[in-house]
Amino acid sequence: MSEIAAKATRSVSQQLIGEMCLAARGAARQLAVAGRALKDQALTLMAQAVMDQAPALKAANAVDLEAARAAGLTSAMLDRLTLDDKTIASMAEGLKEVAALPDPVGEVPGMWRRPNGLLVGRMRIPLGVIGFIYESRPNVTLDAAGLCLKSGNAVVLKGGKEALNSNLALAGIVGQALTAAGLPAAAVQVIPTTDRAATLALLGMDELVDVIIPRGGEGLIRFVAANSRIPVLKHYKGVCHVYVDKGADLAMAVDICVNAKCQRPGVCNAMETLLVHEGEAAAFLPKVAQALLARGVEIRGCPATRALVPQAVPASEEDWPAEFLELILAVKVVPGMDEALDHIAAYGSLHTEAIVTRDHGRAMRFINAVDASVVLVNASTRFNDGGQLGLGAEIGISTSKLHAFGPMGLTELTTTKFIVFGEGQVRV
Amino acid sequence: MSEIAAKATRSVSQQLIGEMCLAARGAARQLAVAGRALKDQALTLMAQAVMDQAPALKAANAVDLEAARAAGLTSAMLDRLTLDDKTIASMAEGLKEVAALPDPVGEVPGMWRRPNGLLVGRMRIPLGVIGFIYESRPNVTLDAAGLCLKSGNAVVLKGGKEALNSNLALAGIVGQALTAAGLPAAAVQVIPTTDRAATLALLGMDELVDVIIPRGGEGLIRFVAANSRIPVLKHYKGVCHVYVDKGADLAMAVDICVNAKCQRPGVCNAMETLLVHEGEAAAFLPKVAQALLARGVEIRGCPATRALVPQAVPASEEDWPAEFLELILAVKVVPGMDEALDHIAAYGSLHTEAIVTRDHGRAMRFINAVDASVVLVNASTRFNDGGQLGLGAEIGISTSKLHAFGPMGLTELTTTKFIVFGEGQVRV
Repeated sequence: MSEIAAKATRSVSQQLIGEMCLAARGAARQLAVAGRALKDQALTLMAQAVMDQAPALKAANAVDLEAARAAGLTSAMLDRLTLDDKTIASMAEGLKEVAALPDPVGEVPGMWRRPNGLLVGRMRIPLGVIGFIYESRPNVTLDAAGLCLKSGNAVVLKGGKEALNSNLALAGIVGQALTAAGLPAAAVQVIPTTDRAATLALLGMDELVDVIIPRGGEGLIRFVAANSRIPVLKHYKGVCHVYVDKGADLAMAVDICVNAKCQRPGVCNAMETLLVHEGEAAAFLPKVAQALLARGVEIRGCPATRALVPQAVPASEEDWPAEFLELILAVKVVPGMDEALDHIAAYGSLHTEAIVTRDHGRAMRFINAVDASVVLVNASTRFNDGGQLGLGAEIGISTSKLHAFGPMGLTELTTTKFIVFGEGQVRV
Repeated sequence: MSEIAAKATRSVSQQLIGEMCLAARGAARQLAVAGRALKDQALTLMAQAVMDQAPALKAANAVDLEAARAAGLTSAMLDRLTLDDKTIASMAEGLKEVAALPDPVGEVPGMWRRPNGLLVGRMRIPLGVIGFIYESRPNVTLDAAGLCLKSGNAVVLKGGKEALNSNLALAGIVGQALTAAGLPAAAVQVIPTTDRAATLALLGMDELVDVIIPRGGEGLIRFVAANSRIPVLKHYKGVCHVYVDKGADLAMAVDICVNAKCQRPGVCNAMETLLVHEGEAAAFLPKVAQALLARGVEIRGCPATRALVPQAVPASEEDWPAEFLELILAVKVVPGMDEALDHIAAYGSLHTEAIVTRDHGRAMRFINAVDASVVLVNASTRFNDGGQLGLGAEIGISTSKLHAFGPMGLTELTTTKFIVFGEGQVRV
């Protein structure tokens, strides 16, 4: 594209996206005072419409799939892009589950009395307008729309180019459901262009958009963080550790390590490095290695590990900060808890860290000292998930500390304002 | 400065500030697990040292004052820059007050049990490393250092060039107190250069700094927000309204308006626009105008206001979004609550909004519908302040919604991580 053509595209995108964000801001004002009943009705209508209009959805999706096949996408990518009866039913189910969750908006957990008689509290309110930027899964469109709507936020969605027809079909359904429920259709909007100029235009709308949530690979998230004028709720990589302490229940440790590494190795809360206290290495490592090797895990060990596990290949310095996302595990024997904590501080990604121990003091020290969004004692790292921890639903996992740290549910899509009831008080 | 010299300065700044931020990150790890006793001891030692070393502080401050006078700073600016016995005593008192506040770190407000037996909760933890960028008041150095330390955060301070000698003298005192208490001196650092390159270098340290808090004029805050790769807790302007409802207690309304406008007109929570229901205009406006005019307030009114208040000058369109920060008040008569809410939505700055009313339904509607960090019924806008609302101390007021909205106390300098106690649970 020529420089002039690129500029023209940019300004068209900017105008269109500016108008969409302005409409979203108006919708957000209405949503902020919409009661739970109205929002739940819209979610229920959406769920029904997705099922009713499954044939049209699949037809739109078929266009995307054909283009994707022609473009030579891998079968894993085609799989993520596909809307079949099962994924459609699961999207509808997801919307009904969100409708059943409590509404965080309007909650005032407590109020306090000031010496001058003022009654002061914090009331939970929506963030306002959310910009949601994601890649090729069209089901994310409805997930995000549902969670944003329930928490009283308007959302502007920017999906991947592979899923554009599917996303626009979903947006049509959502818009009809919103209108039928008496809510503004601009509460959920899908940006109809998918070029980078559109993303950049959205990231520049800092007067109209309150937060950007990117969901996808590290490349997307870094691009968004580097180019956004709007606060970003980021999710970087998960380099998660399990530390097996001296005196740990070794059978429990094997179960936890196998689960943390193998139950779903391609996700961010899978274990990437195992740290073992040297006092347990001889008893534990051959046992855990046998279980992991049987499941096809490649073990990359420090010298002490390799002395006990002959099948292990040498770990290199690049393995300690690596997020493998596959059946590879780095293993290191450490002289004690201090070294385990130092290793986690040096190589961890603030995501998920677990200890297996029988010692209460060391359990509490690990809980207190480890800097990660979820810290576990005697449980698998795989529990870092909004559903598993009881948040009801999850829009992502934040690995930066501002606003939210860890799995983000409905509450993390809100903020609080102060409310004050007076009887004529003035400041002296 | 030549282009080459500018680049050289930038790289020197970057290296120096990189080293400072790295040291801060190390200190933050120690501070995160430092107990309350240790932190309070450091604060108490700081307070003592500030008093003991008042002569040295005043000597350093005198150097800054002399340069400022030579540079022709206004007397208001010189006043803000001055450290005399009174400001020094007040800084020491401030540190002792922070020591007396409860420590938010380590708090676990509740835990819940999952169906699989996992016990899950959120533990309050420090943010990590805070970059604090401010202008010419040296007392802010100790305010910020005290609040950051108490909340377990390391802080890198970048003050204004006018206060450099004062700030470095204060940093010396703080460093000694930290060392004496057994805490790392790198927990509180003052950047020893004050050029813009230093600010830009700090704003680029996104791998080491968790949040930037700017404090100063709108120019500083916009510069920081536009150039930061790190999340910023922003405080923009306060265009605060009081809406006097139909049937309001007019004597109460006069008291609240006079207090909101006149008690300290130069601050962000002062009223800038008064909205009056047309049903009360004839009874209320002459009364409130008399009280305001007697205090030297210039009234800029809509036509209906001017018909009732002959001293009022015509309000122009620029007056409605204006933050006057002086004895000027825009006044508008509105046909009803809808128009008042629309006006606030159009011109308010999300800062502070108040209604004076006797009607419970409209009080609750105002509380629920108004988008501002503090919403008050029958009280002055001047109460938007951490101390006044009971937060104990305040590091600023956030007018953006992410992480914190409204006055920020110690709790707002922290975040939460999830902690999980298991008995060998794995994910199925």
